[in-house]
Amino acid sequence: MVEQSTVNATIDAYMAAYSAADRAAWLACFADDAWIEDPVGTPRREGLDAIAAFWDETHGLSDSVELRPLGLRVVIGHEATFTMQARPSMGGQTYALDIIDHMTFDEAGRIRTMRAFFDPSTLRPAGD
Amino acid sequence: MVEQSTVNATIDAYMAAYSAADRAAWLACFADDAWIEDPVGTPRREGLDAIAAFWDETHGLSDSVELRPLGLRVVIGHEATFTMQARPSMGGQTYALDIIDHMTFDEAGRIRTMRAFFDPSTLRPAGD
Repeated sequence: MVEQSTVNATIDAYMAAYSAADRAAWLACFADDAWIEDPVGTPRREGLDAIAAFWDETHGLSDSVELRPLGLRVVIGHEATFTMQARPSMGGQTYALDIIDHMTFDEAGRIRTMRAFFDPSTLRPAGD
Repeated sequence: MVEQSTVNATIDAYMAAYSAADRAAWLACFADDAWIEDPVGTPRREGLDAIAAFWDETHGLSDSVELRPLGLRVVIGHEATFTMQARPSMGGQTYALDIIDHMTFDEAGRIRTMRAFFDPSTLRPAGD
């Protein structure tokens, strides 16, 4: 059983790397056989190459993206779910999008699966 | 494909029935073959009889329980995830427990699966 502190460290590293636009550090959070579904309802990106391609596609859409915790995180065994806000900046304007992520982890605490629940139509100018 | 408004109505009915201690209305939110895992990590309760038994066990623990939305709900196809706070009252004291629920739904908008992510150790006296 993976330690809860290890899972929490991975989530912290994942959010920090994404916000810092540190592609290598972000990819290092994933297991080799990981897949992501982002947003839920779109085709899964399976394996590190596909996940890296996802990074390249999405990071071209904005100048920067901050991931900010929204206050709720629950880690149980090899699973976690948590709330966060993605804050992309484009042309001097920052937007906000609220997300609930669900992840599972391997024994080393690396992400095996990630599903991001959000509604793209709720993207709005950030109010703070 | 079930309508998003139908799923939202089921979630609203589920929270209202639970808060009103309306056992029959709460059970009516579930499909016949539904299962719940509450909290995540405990054995699943499979079928309406087992779900009804879960209601009876948990409602004996407190005088009343309010389920209050915590602001984030995402409905995608036959799935939903949302934040809420359970507020059990015992002997004149109200407590608070933050939860992320994940549900799936059948074509009629009834709950097929429900998983409740929370950490029982975070139960605390309600601050408001």
